Amino acid sequence: MHTIMHLQEAIPKGEFKMIDLLSLDKNSSTHLYIQLAQQLKKLIKEEKIAPHTKLPPIRKLAQKLDINNVTVVKAYDLLAAENTVYKKVGSGTFVAPKLEVDNESPHLDEEVYIDEDSKFDQQIINFATAAPSPELFPVQTFKKLLNKVLDRDKGYAFGYQKSQGYLPLRESISNYLQNYEIQSTAQNIQIVSGAQQGIDILAKTFLDYGDSVLVEEPSYPGALSVFKAKGAQLIEVPIEKDGIKIAELEKKLNKSKPKFLYLMPNFQNPTGYSYSKKKMEKILDLAAEYNLLIIEDDCLNDLNYSSKPTLPLKALDNSSSVIYLKSFSKVFMPGLRLAFLIIPPEYLEDILLSKYISDIFTDGLVQRVLDLYFRQEIWTEQLDYLQQTYQHRYEVMVKSLKNHLPKEVSFITPQGGLNIWLKLPDTLTMEQLYNRALGAGVKIATGDLFYSQQPCQNRIRLSFAAVEAQQIKNGIEKLAKIIKDLLTKNNDILPPL
Amino acid sequence: MHTIMHLQEAIPKGEFKMIDLLSLDKNSSTHLYIQLAQQLKKLIKEEKIAPHTKLPPIRKLAQKLDINNVTVVKAYDLLAAENTVYKKVGSGTFVAPKLEVDNESPHLDEEVYIDEDSKFDQQIINFATAAPSPELFPVQTFKKLLNKVLDRDKGYAFGYQKSQGYLPLRESISNYLQNYEIQSTAQNIQIVSGAQQGIDILAKTFLDYGDSVLVEEPSYPGALSVFKAKGAQLIEVPIEKDGIKIAELEKKLNKSKPKFLYLMPNFQNPTGYSYSKKKMEKILDLAAEYNLLIIEDDCLNDLNYSSKPTLPLKALDNSSSVIYLKSFSKVFMPGLRLAFLIIPPEYLEDILLSKYISDIFTDGLVQRVLDLYFRQEIWTEQLDYLQQTYQHRYEVMVKSLKNHLPKEVSFITPQGGLNIWLKLPDTLTMEQLYNRALGAGVKIATGDLFYSQQPCQNRIRLSFAAVEAQQIKNGIEKLAKIIKDLLTKNNDILPPL
Repeated sequence: MHTIMHLQEAIPKGEFKMIDLLSLDKNSSTHLYIQLAQQLKKLIKEEKIAPHTKLPPIRKLAQKLDINNVTVVKAYDLLAAENTVYKKVGSGTFVAPKLEVDNESPHLDEEVYIDEDSKFDQQIINFATAAPSPELFPVQTFKKLLNKVLDRDKGYAFGYQKSQGYLPLRESISNYLQNYEIQSTAQNIQIVSGAQQGIDILAKTFLDYGDSVLVEEPSYPGALSVFKAKGAQLIEVPIEKDGIKIAELEKKLNKSKPKFLYLMPNFQNPTGYSYSKKKMEKILDLAAEYNLLIIEDDCLNDLNYSSKPTLPLKALDNSSSVIYLKSFSKVFMPGLRLAFLIIPPEYLEDILLSKYISDIFTDGLVQRVLDLYFRQEIWTEQLDYLQQTYQHRYEVMVKSLKNHLPKEVSFITPQGGLNIWLKLPDTLTMEQLYNRALGAGVKIATGDLFYSQQPCQNRIRLSFAAVEAQQIKNGIEKLAKIIKDLLTKNNDILPPL
Repeated sequence: MHTIMHLQEAIPKGEFKMIDLLSLDKNSSTHLYIQLAQQLKKLIKEEKIAPHTKLPPIRKLAQKLDINNVTVVKAYDLLAAENTVYKKVGSGTFVAPKLEVDNESPHLDEEVYIDEDSKFDQQIINFATAAPSPELFPVQTFKKLLNKVLDRDKGYAFGYQKSQGYLPLRESISNYLQNYEIQSTAQNIQIVSGAQQGIDILAKTFLDYGDSVLVEEPSYPGALSVFKAKGAQLIEVPIEKDGIKIAELEKKLNKSKPKFLYLMPNFQNPTGYSYSKKKMEKILDLAAEYNLLIIEDDCLNDLNYSSKPTLPLKALDNSSSVIYLKSFSKVFMPGLRLAFLIIPPEYLEDILLSKYISDIFTDGLVQRVLDLYFRQEIWTEQLDYLQQTYQHRYEVMVKSLKNHLPKEVSFITPQGGLNIWLKLPDTLTMEQLYNRALGAGVKIATGDLFYSQQPCQNRIRLSFAAVEAQQIKNGIEKLAKIIKDLLTKNNDILPPL
């Protein structure tokens, strides 16, 4: 008595014929959405649907199959969770390319959740990720120090750790911070499992549902997601090449009582902009005046390619307005989850509690290894090596952009970091550019990822963290050609996606 | 023109004379609370105030120094954050004992935040912590596999990982779960950075401010803290030796719409109780009837010392009611933050997002090492070894308790796990017992830690995870003697604290 639904109608434009191949059994004990997901997966596995093919729009498929929209949504979600398909906000759901069995090794995107398709990055020139390529990092040194720690500490290297972090490491960090002109003690430092956890812990400590938070516009999506997930209202202050607009900040401080201001004062993500000392001082004055807490995210400060020294905001903070957050992902080992906070005394205990309920403590083994990097002074060596490698990539990218981009595209050359932020003419749509570039094997991050409210249609971020110098040159040439083509509307000569 | 406040008056009873030694400068640029903290710290360092001395009550000290209560609170908080003092809920603030410079190695308590004094556990017999002693774990094997992973995967072992977790490990776990009669696939598994993060991620996914959550009474304080921090209302269902009271659960389901029920069906923490199959089935029936989500925390299931096999609730779950959480802390390496969730498909994507905003991904190196434990079948070997070690400790503790406890104290012998839950006569106060035991070098966990609402005055939890067999015997003998002494009111013959 099973009702088998066969579907004869093909979708117009020949975009897909897969609906013909689907057949759901409403009386089966298997949920309809699981049936649908299984059948789509089979078609994809058997290559009856090609990689990057767009799946039918939800409503259309639901109608054709005589099922609820929700059933289709759930089936697509399931496939997305399995990475069989990927989603593009506003565009729909697409078939993911075939993967090797072990797809873990290549550099996954820092915005991995947003870019679910990042897993096939290995074949393409990936300017979308700011996550460094693993082959950059000196594994032998790490291995040597790791074994040293194991021989020295034995089982204690695996024991339960203090929630605040391994004391010798906190001391090492505290000493090292003198290089940034930051005064701190081990007592003011909280070790966290990466910058993302640092942000999450601060949100947990300070935000309740409905609170407001000041953020740079544009800003790092991983932070914006955390604040939004806490139910916070984001108040955006536009950033210029020397920092956020002060008048705008002041206006917003007069109108609302934000819980904190989240900033990246050096080589900001995504823009690469750095704050002038004057703006930093003005912001600290406003912080004192309005009793405003500032969270300074300083993950890229070490990657300075100019002769001008960088100064963290925290170095100028005399009135305990700033909580400082620094990750080691870009300069130690990207996959090891390790970062730290410098915390004014009055917040220490609340933040410790938030850390405790988040994951009790951060892996002690890795903390001990990093501590040895500092104590054996290998740290500076590694930093120099990475700095030079990134600087070479940076120079190649800047030069390639200057040589190949059409005059309609502009950018401000950053003095450091891993990203360059391009402004494109309004006549281009970023989605079109993204798709064309991907079709040509070049992946970019479109600007809308970095804005929480208004869509930003004419920006892209290019990162050189994961691309070798020669590939950067190739990639930029390809990208520049696509932009020129799109600008001159020579769309006909481009190969179809 | 500085106003120096000298304080002559000593506090009655000679409880402390330290107030005489304090002198605050109200016109200094240093905050008063920092001055106060610094001066107290100096006195403690110079041993002018002895370890375990109670600091003056907040209001009293504030009055004597002519400062705000808040200033004293902040000073004490600062000292507590530095571990110069420790707090005991309801009792006040106490001077911490002197510490070695590297105080990181000994087994810190899983409830480290609650037990801030746990750092001096090294000198005492610690029945308060359920965190295993590091020396239990075979470090050489771990080291061998770690080096294997580094040689095999090189930099990729440190690369950015998938938020969902390293695929081969998820496959290994999925295979291994057949031992528990749990059907799963790698797609249903989410790797998390320890059980605490698992709980935090689930709270993030399912709880909004004001939601209600069903919990066992008593339950694991780390979970209760997370739910409370999310602003959830806890609805407690008392647990009996075969599981929570079903009638009570049903009554509460009729009255409210909780977001989920958090359970530990095997060797529950703190009680050690295990659910009968009948109760498990009844709970699953209720879950289906009331559309109730269940979170099963199964960290101790492997430590079964009886001949009766244990069955996770998840093994009986045919209607996707249960999210299963399992930590490796007790049986792999305690300090490595690694646990996993088994998730019904409909929740996969939301939980992945919560994981992503929590810390993007869990350290890939450790995931790879654990995967090798499974693939090289070392896992079962390690489990057997630990199981036997714990079982020996368990048997010694049960025997010692039976031999030495007075008849007024009762307990139900658990069939596994790491804890024994004692019921004491109402005539005893737990705080008195705690202090007497600590004075004699034995640390216990008092029952109130495990209750979110009503104070529970006549329970203690004894863990044998961190104490060697011979020490267990000594500790229980001491504890039994103290209990007997307190019961017979022979307080006079006890040494003063």
